[in-house]
Order: sequence, then C-alpha cells, then structure tokens
Amino acid sequence: MARRIVVIGGVAAGPKAAARARRVDPEAEITLLEKGPLVSYGSCGFPFLLAGLVDSLAPLRSTPAGVLRDEEYFWREKRVRVLTGTAAEEIDPERRLVRARRAGETLTIPYDRLVVATGAVPRRPPIEGLDQEGVFGLHRPEDAEGLRRALAPRRRAVVVGGGMIGLEVADALAARRLQVTVCEAAEHLLPGLLDRDVARLLESRLGAMGIQVVTGEPVTAISREDGGLRVRASAWQGEADLVVVACGVVPEVDLARRAGVEIGSTGAIAVDERQATSVPDVFAAGDCCETTHLVSGRKTWLPLASTAGKQGRVAGTNAAGGEERFPGVVGTAVLQVAEQNVARTGLGEEEARRLGYRVVTALVAGTDTPHYYPMHAPLALKVVADAASGRLLGAQAVGPGEAVKRIDVLATALACGATLEQAAHLDLGYAPPFATALDICLHALNQARNARDGLARPLSAAALKALMEGPRPPLLVDVRTPAEYEAHRLPYPALAIPLAELRDRLDEVRQQVLPGQEIVAVCEMGVRGFEAQRLLDAAGLGPSRYLEGGIWAWPYGLQDG
Amino acid sequence: MARRIVVIGGVAAGPKAAARARRVDPEAEITLLEKGPLVSYGSCGFPFLLAGLVDSLAPLRSTPAGVLRDEEYFWREKRVRVLTGTAAEEIDPERRLVRARRAGETLTIPYDRLVVATGAVPRRPPIEGLDQEGVFGLHRPEDAEGLRRALAPRRRAVVVGGGMIGLEVADALAARRLQVTVCEAAEHLLPGLLDRDVARLLESRLGAMGIQVVTGEPVTAISREDGGLRVRASAWQGEADLVVVACGVVPEVDLARRAGVEIGSTGAIAVDERQATSVPDVFAAGDCCETTHLVSGRKTWLPLASTAGKQGRVAGTNAAGGEERFPGVVGTAVLQVAEQNVARTGLGEEEARRLGYRVVTALVAGTDTPHYYPMHAPLALKVVADAASGRLLGAQAVGPGEAVKRIDVLATALACGATLEQAAHLDLGYAPPFATALDICLHALNQARNARDGLARPLSAAALKALMEGPRPPLLVDVRTPAEYEAHRLPYPALAIPLAELRDRLDEVRQQVLPGQEIVAVCEMGVRGFEAQRLLDAAGLGPSRYLEGGIWAWPYGLQDG
Repeated sequence: MARRIVVIGGVAAGPKAAARARRVDPEAEITLLEKGPLVSYGSCGFPFLLAGLVDSLAPLRSTPAGVLRDEEYFWREKRVRVLTGTAAEEIDPERRLVRARRAGETLTIPYDRLVVATGAVPRRPPIEGLDQEGVFGLHRPEDAEGLRRALAPRRRAVVVGGGMIGLEVADALAARRLQVTVCEAAEHLLPGLLDRDVARLLESRLGAMGIQVVTGEPVTAISREDGGLRVRASAWQGEADLVVVACGVVPEVDLARRAGVEIGSTGAIAVDERQATSVPDVFAAGDCCETTHLVSGRKTWLPLASTAGKQGRVAGTNAAGGEERFPGVVGTAVLQVAEQNVARTGLGEEEARRLGYRVVTALVAGTDTPHYYPMHAPLALKVVADAASGRLLGAQAVGPGEAVKRIDVLATALACGATLEQAAHLDLGYAPPFATALDICLHALNQARNARDGLARPLSAAALKALMEGPRPPLLVDVRTPAEYEAHRLPYPALAIPLAELRDRLDEVRQQVLPGQEIVAVCEMGVRGFEAQRLLDAAGLGPSRYLEGGIWAWPYGLQDG
Repeated sequence: MARRIVVIGGVAAGPKAAARARRVDPEAEITLLEKGPLVSYGSCGFPFLLAGLVDSLAPLRSTPAGVLRDEEYFWREKRVRVLTGTAAEEIDPERRLVRARRAGETLTIPYDRLVVATGAVPRRPPIEGLDQEGVFGLHRPEDAEGLRRALAPRRRAVVVGGGMIGLEVADALAARRLQVTVCEAAEHLLPGLLDRDVARLLESRLGAMGIQVVTGEPVTAISREDGGLRVRASAWQGEADLVVVACGVVPEVDLARRAGVEIGSTGAIAVDERQATSVPDVFAAGDCCETTHLVSGRKTWLPLASTAGKQGRVAGTNAAGGEERFPGVVGTAVLQVAEQNVARTGLGEEEARRLGYRVVTALVAGTDTPHYYPMHAPLALKVVADAASGRLLGAQAVGPGEAVKRIDVLATALACGATLEQAAHLDLGYAPPFATALDICLHALNQARNARDGLARPLSAAALKALMEGPRPPLLVDVRTPAEYEAHRLPYPALAIPLAELRDRLDEVRQQVLPGQEIVAVCEMGVRGFEAQRLLDAAGLGPSRYLEGGIWAWPYGLQDG
C-alpha cells in the first residue's frame, strides 16, 4: 500500500517537504493541510510588495515560469493534495490520525508519516491599543495588502520593533516617502543579531535615509488623538498616521505539544538531525522547530525561510523513506535597509563572551572593490574568534558595500570549523569588478590575528569615546592627509600629522604627550592608524593604539569642514 | 645590527612583502629593487583603464586616500628604500649579495633575507609579425597607455588569446565600441579554466554583446595589408586595425635559477609553505613561484594578484623573523566579460577525470535572487564532486547573475575539504535582495547528490545535441507552458506537454515513443525537467533523462517565435 504522508502547514517548510517527498517516493499519498486560504507564498517578499518593487501578491505565489502555486498546481504538478482553509486541531499519534476542521466539518486524516510545519506567529507585545485602526502587523498576505493600501507619501509611520522585519518594513515605507520612526525596546537595533558597536554604526546611517531611530524605548500604548495615533514608550512618544508592529514571532507548537511531542528549551519543537520529533513517525520542520547552532553546539531557534526550506527537504526525504540529515545552522542573517547591507553569522562578541569564550575581535573598514573601480562602496566588517584556539566564532558587516558575500564566505568557514589562519588564506575570487586583491574579509581575519599576536592594538569607537570623555583622555594623532582632515574629523582635539610625516615629526608628539598618557592614532578606515601605531610603538611612544575602522566607522557624529 | 631585507620586484608580491616586513620588524633595513620606472601599480586595473572606467594610471598607483605609491611614499610611510630602474642581475647566495644595474652602474646590495618577486612575463607565441605597429601587449603600464591611445569607435580589433586577460581586454574594447574578435587556439575560451560545456555557454552569450569568438584557431601570422592588419590562423583569417596579443604569461625565474634556486615541475620557483626556496634565507612570492593545489594536492602555477599578495605577506613575515605559512590555493579565478560573470574554483570535470577521479557533476540554471525581485538575473552553476567520497572537487559559473559569491562560498568549502552533504546544508544569507531561499549553489549541490543517488538523470546540452543528431535520437518532451514554448524552443521536434498536464497525457507520450527509445524532458532551467523525469520514470516510461540547465543553458541556438 502507498505510504500516506500528511503535512501540516502550507507556507514554507510544509510545501517543500511535500514536494521533496513526492520526488523521493512517486507512489506516496501526500496531503497538505493549511489553515489559511493560500499556500506556498513568499512572505519574505512582503516588504518588497510594500516598497512597490513587487506589484501584487501574485508573483509571490507563482513559480518562476508564472504558474500560480495553488491547490490545482500542487495536485497537477506534484500530485500533492492541498487542503486550504483546513485547520489541524489534533494529532492522535496512537491511531496515527490528524483531526482537522474545514468549513465547519471535521476531517479525520490517517497518516503513516506526519510532518509538522506549523510555523510561527507574531509575538503580541504588552502594548495597549494594538487592535485599532491604523495599527498593522505583517504576517499574513492580508496584513501586507492592508498595510499597502494605507501607504501614502508624507504620512507619518512608527514601526514598533527594530528587528529584521521591522527594519525591512521601515525601509519599504521610507522608499514610499513616508516619514518613518523605528522604536526599539532594546538598547540598540537588531538586538540578538548585532553587537552594539555594529548596530550603532548602522543606526548612524539610517537618519540620512529618512529613518529615525529610537532605542531603549519599549512601547507601552498606542492611542488615537486628534485624528492621529499617539505612540507612547517609556520616555519617548510620537505621533503617527499608521503604526506597524513587528516585535518578532514565537513558534507555533500548541498542536504538537498536545500530541505529546517534546518541546525544546528554546520553546520550539525538539528534533533530531533527521527532523524527527520525540513521537514516532512525526517530523517537524521550519519555524516551529529548533535546531543546533554549529558554533556553540547548543540548541537554537532562528526562524528563517532558508532554514525552513532545508529542514522541509530533510523532513520530506525522511518521511518518504529516504535518509537525510540537517546538521544545523551557524546563525546567518542578512537584510537590506536604507541602502545598507547588514549581515551577520556565528556568534557575536557579546554572545561569545556570555558563553565563556575569551575572544579576540577585529573591526575593519574598507571597500568591496578597488578604490579605483568606479562602482566600489565601503563597508565595515567585524570578526570574532576564540583567542585560545584561533577558531573563528562569528562575523558581522554593515555598509553600502557588498557585505553579504563576505558573511556567506565566513558562514561557510564557520560551518567547517575553520581557524583564523585557515580562513585568512582562503582563495577567493579576485578581479576589480568583484573584490580587492586582498578581500576585506581576509583583511579582517588578518587583523584579528595581528591583534591576538600583540602586533595590532585596536580601540573601538565606543571605547575611544568613553576615554575621550573620561578623566584622562588619550592624545589623538590624526594621521590622514590635510585634505581629509579638512573635510571632517573627530569632535575632539587632535594632533594632525599625516602618516608620511610622522617619522620626521615624532618630536611634536613627544612634546604634546603627557606623562603616562596613551596615544591613539586615527585615520579614515583603520589601515594607516595601525601603521602609525606600529611606528609610535617602535619610537618608544607606545604601547599606543589605533581607532579600528577609522573615522568612517565612527558612529557618534563628526566635525565637518 | 638591524636585519637587512632585500626584495626583488616591485609590482604586487614585492611591495606587499616589504610593507609586511616593516610592520613585523620596525628596525629592519628594507630595500626593494624594481627594474621598471614604477612600483606598486594595480595592473589588474589596465582593462578598466582601456574601458574608460579608470581615467589615468594615477588611481592605479595611489592609495585609497589618494597618495601616490612612489619611492617617496615607500620611504616616508613605510621606511622602505625603493630603487626603481634597478635590474637585479645576480644573486650570490654564498656572500648574500644581490648585484643590480642602475643607470649604467653596478650596485652590490647585501642581504640577510631575500625575497624574490620577479613576477611573470608575457608568453611570446610563435606568430610572425608580432613586432609591428598596431600590435599591442598589455603587461606594463606603457602597454596600457599605448593601447588606450589606439582605441576609437568602429575600429576593428582582434584579440589573440581567449584567456582571462584576452577576454577582459575584449570586454573593454567592446565597451569602447570597437568591433572585437577574440581568436583562441584551443577548442574553447578559457581553456584550463572552464570545462567545455560552461565555456560554450559563455561563448554563446558574447556575440550578443558585440564580441565575435573564433576557437580552435592558432594565429600564425600578422601582416600589414591595404592599410590594415591581416591576422592569419589555421583556417580563419580576419582584418583588423589593431591586434592585442594576450597569450598568457610565463614565470620569470632566470635570476633565481642562476643562483641555484630549485625550479619546480611547473616551471616556477619551488617554495615550501613558508615561501622559502631551496636556498637558505631566500624566499619567493607571487607570479614567479608555484604553490600547492589544495584539492589535487599537486603543485600548481596560477599567477594571480590575490595569491601574490598573500604569498608576499607570508614571505615578508618570515623574512622579518616571524612565522607564517601559506597553505596553497584551490584554483579560484573570476572575470567579467560582456556583462557575464565568469567564475571557477577547484578542479574542472575534465581535469578531475584526468587526475583519476570518478566524478559526479550537476549543472543547474537559476536566478541569483527571487524571480519576483526586480533586480534578479540568471546564471548557470556546475559542481563537480568525487562520486566515491562525495567530496566537492570544483565548481564553475557563468551568467549575468551574481556568480562570484557562489564560487567564493564553494572555494571556501573546497579549502575545508567539504563533502556535498556538508556544503548542501550551508547556512547562507537569505533575503530577497541577496539570494533565493535555497541558494543556487545549494541547489546545485543537492542536484549532484540526486544524480549520485540515481534520483536525477541529467543530460548535458552537448550530449543531447549529439544524441539528437545521431542515429537514434531520443523523444523530447518539452514540459514548459505554451507561452514559453511559443517564445523559443530547441531546434528539434518535441512533444509539447506542460508539466501540469503530463500526468493526464502520458498516453500521448506512450503513443509517440518508439520501442527502446529514450525520453528526454526539457524545460526552461532544469527544475521542471527533473520533475518530469521522476514522473516519467514512475509511469514506467523510464529510465528517462532531463536537459540540465534547461533551454536557458542551451548554447547552440534556439528556434524562435
């Protein structure tokens, strides 16, 4: 008899599992249940629908050949029976049945193998006034359609939540010429994804693109006043014509939990490498289940469509009698906002420290392609490694330059357990349209090695700011050219001596520096600062330090002209 | 006493070695000898100078801050004494001296550590008439300047050599509106870099951008006739206003060889992981030396600026008393020509077979970002793996889509010795501006696994063409939509049945297929063809096959409208 495979959930992991199961087992009877009216839509495309880059829901629901992925498509092309508007209400693992509700009737669907792909639902933050006109979410297709209709230039929008979806929505709204404010409860944007220093750099870039950022302000209430909406946080409050709430999602595990499926410490469904749950012949995939973080070795929950697709494929293979394993993730996440590419993988510095690693880091700035190539753009890249073993732990990047390629390369190195030494010698593709001869990611890895070996003594922007505003500020030596210094500089007194003249003008430094005062070399992107630090150290003026990432990566405002 | 470090060669690896040595040892006396008038110029930028993207040599010779990298720069910023116009004539390893000639005088320069970075020189092919007006090379800055002055719209150019430089030059000339023909002696473009199938795909794209390609035609003579140049190959001949000869380079090892330095089997200087040669305290770096291919384990010679920089850094560190190792390369090479991104890493299929591997391959076509995202573009990606171990061996990509990121990811996986299973589950960054949820490189790896496991039976375009033109052509079933079929199709008779209808119309296939005749399913990019193959096999019509990469990757011309 044909194997009966039932899949619960029709957005990302579910359809993938069903389609893969069909390719592995042409004879299986495959049924997919989806409680909503649509299946297999690219919800990651909603922000681009809002931005006007995608003109309707149809492309998000279609194959590249333009065929709509509806019930008929799944039946005719995949021989998968899709039941939309069908909410699974109970899994009976003893009898191997799913009970579902469809148009008021109860269906009883037997299975031999079950794939749970119930996804995640928006987290509902404790905010008064969420359920009123003008307040939107962005989870279901109808949310996207509703919000899109509310967009008009010059309207004021507040986005509650500075996570990935919040920022993608903010970007879309700014592209549609709304006045956008992002209000984030945590101390910085993308908490849990970026370290504070990288997040601050991103924040410093958003204002220029018309996105105001408020951090450390949990929104408590939204009320209607004088024809508009008033958004109240702890100290901040603002007016808006519309509010988008994007406070993250939580795994939808109720159905599985009631069936006796083990829920992991992350709150998502526990699965093994085969995507098998604790209940025989029940698999789980996608946003409802947890996975292994390959760097920390711990269980993690990072709901992303890319992971959902891979897990769906593995669950579908195994449900169809094949053999496939999903090893886990390294925590890669990327987005584009205000023409900034933002990307991270692995562990952040703060996260690594919390896990007990003694870390070495490097933050470098540079261009993605050679400065002489017209289409070059800058970015900052931070790498984090374990000082003891040299093992790479993570990386983060932000800037208009091509950041995602570098993060993908480092994600690959992370998955393979590479050390700084191994990764620094990677044979990456070089030609001027694509990269510099020594790619910025190799430069960052080398700089982390220099820091670990005591050759480089980098100072972060935050640390320099704290020192400059503290009781014993260091002596700043700005080693850029006079033209660069004239254009903009740090908002502190500095000795301006171009690197080319520093060797001949060391006496000026000696005259200025106070006994016991530390010297910090400053340049545009960090490279000359490091050279200057080596030079000052060799001249007996050390141990000095240099501003990592240079003035380009300084997020606290510069003095112009 | 300060350590005396002498570097011979001032283009890429040499300056890098000198600069790194300075950072490691602030006390060393560092001297760099360069026979030409300039040092530290980005010769990789010459094609972009020709194309008009870079407006003079100055940016190629400057730091990102706009400081010219000349003798004074190296002295003032790096305390490296640079002697241009100084040709090293002899290395005396007994006395640790370099004898050099500068403005008619002989200099004797003592060293404690020597770095040989003599680079490579253009290969001079056996062509009559190379030394005449209108025939150009592109090795030195003056070559680039001379060729640039000769460019004018509508002039006819023949580029002799379809390697990386030849194609970059052809691209630049086409951008300047010249009529360009590339004449390559080997059977296809980029021999030694691309497999024939991938090269054919590239060739099929160049004509549309105004670059004609002639292959299998070694040029034998260039002569001046009727005011123009006539280029003669075996069978082909053509007229030109200017000819660019780009027939590769050979390592410049004469100086090292005369000093008793061991030359490797590749013809380049043999070095160990420390970049040390066979002669004590003599290091070598850059295009003059060979390295280890980390996939094959063999010695290889792949002269690239990216490798030169890394080797220079390692040689500089070790010459300055540090400790650093360069493990080798995986054979990554990338270029852009006629809006096509071309990239490869590791071993090609043909190369792997020659080395004795039993290989499994997959060639897939797809888009770099989701089809609904406006800025998406297509590419083809081929992966090669060892069938026995599943170890990834190499990859090649071509298309207007972002190919280099995928090759960089796979180059990283190669350097780490990853298997198809490991690489297929990489956690790559996904958001619609950057990638599809299942990135094309993971799709290619999965398809290679499907092929290895017998689930997928791909057929290459070349193999299908041979079958269709042979005595027993297979039955083609084109499973695309009617609209796609109307737009263009293979130039052979086919049964046109959209995938959605195939299950219901299997009788038509049964009626058409001859006893023993193989069925080949055809679609636009290969995905539906694979589905159809599974379906046909399940219906008892197999074992069938599908056209890998689909019609998009068919390089032999289509039937339109």
